[in-house]
Amino acid sequence: MEKKENTAKTRFQMTKKRHSETLEKAIKEKKADSEFMGLCRAIAKTKNFFTSSCCSGRIMLLELQPGETKKDARFHKKWHCTVKTKEVWNALNETSSGELWLRMEPLILHIGADSLENANKILDVMKKAGVKRGGLIVAKPGKFLLELEGTQRMSLPVKSGKKILVEKDFLELLVKKANEKMKKNKKTIKRLEKEIIKAVK
Amino acid sequence: MEKKENTAKTRFQMTKKRHSETLEKAIKEKKADSEFMGLCRAIAKTKNFFTSSCCSGRIMLLELQPGETKKDARFHKKWHCTVKTKEVWNALNETSSGELWLRMEPLILHIGADSLENANKILDVMKKAGVKRGGLIVAKPGKFLLELEGTQRMSLPVKSGKKILVEKDFLELLVKKANEKMKKNKKTIKRLEKEIIKAVK
Repeated sequence: MEKKENTAKTRFQMTKKRHSETLEKAIKEKKADSEFMGLCRAIAKTKNFFTSSCCSGRIMLLELQPGETKKDARFHKKWHCTVKTKEVWNALNETSSGELWLRMEPLILHIGADSLENANKILDVMKKAGVKRGGLIVAKPGKFLLELEGTQRMSLPVKSGKKILVEKDFLELLVKKANEKMKKNKKTIKRLEKEIIKAVK
Repeated sequence: MEKKENTAKTRFQMTKKRHSETLEKAIKEKKADSEFMGLCRAIAKTKNFFTSSCCSGRIMLLELQPGETKKDARFHKKWHCTVKTKEVWNALNETSSGELWLRMEPLILHIGADSLENANKILDVMKKAGVKRGGLIVAKPGKFLLELEGTQRMSLPVKSGKKILVEKDFLELLVKKANEKMKKNKKTIKRLEKEIIKAVK
């Protein structure tokens, strides 16, 4: 039993070390998500938690071929910040095939914990921060991985073959709504940061 | 320790009993989701699992007031099956206030398990069935609750105040896409049923 526990502990520490190094590298190369940086760094400093990936939300044009799922789809364009209608309109007018979907996707964050007890601390506070969706996607000795996801979304087809399906006026409204959702996401991340930092101390 | 385990066991059995009764009542009153019925009944017959709620996907018009979240929103109309453009168009022309969003939401299923080990059986098979999102949202002695969610979605504003924002032709395309997603949902539920029944035996 003791040996098992030690193996789990070692496994957790190795995984945490690997993810901390990846985070530091991403920060150095300016590839880390700036909205989540404060939270990721605070979590990296704890003994019992790590973050493995995060995205503070994004707006994109996704290219789908008939019958394809998102997994097989291609990014026609993506933005990790608010965007101007003109940029989306121009991207829509670039050559594409199949179907283009305009999507706004919510924040997503993966946190690892060394025990079920510690993982529960995150589950307990995420709802306080307004994050409704989230759970343990791996729950094994030495690896308790949580996935948290926001609920701000938009998703619709905007181009089919060569035909743009939306008027510029309507696109302007859609982009405005998508940008509002990106801003809501940012606020949620701030609340999440505050609640999680309190919980993991 | 033994007392604690017995308390957890009793709590699980009581929760399972309550949810089984709710399911039977819903079936009798024809309020149960027909797509999930086979899976829910099979799970009800096991010793270590129960289902607490499910929805096989839905298409809706959601009424949002400025600054509101979905939680405070009102259903202008909802359908738990594929829908005709005419029905959506007529609903759009009915009196509403604020903003109407056309949304297609994916399947959602909540499964309870008596132990982490049994909960992991569900996590292990859901991906085989093509369900990408899902995790343990409660993980406490006697209560391990899983939330599984599909990824088929659509979401966009279609009316603002009295102004309908989409042409009938475009609405027709949107409804077609939403219906296709409802059908994909059904297929996923069938695969999920097969995989879960194998896993909980």
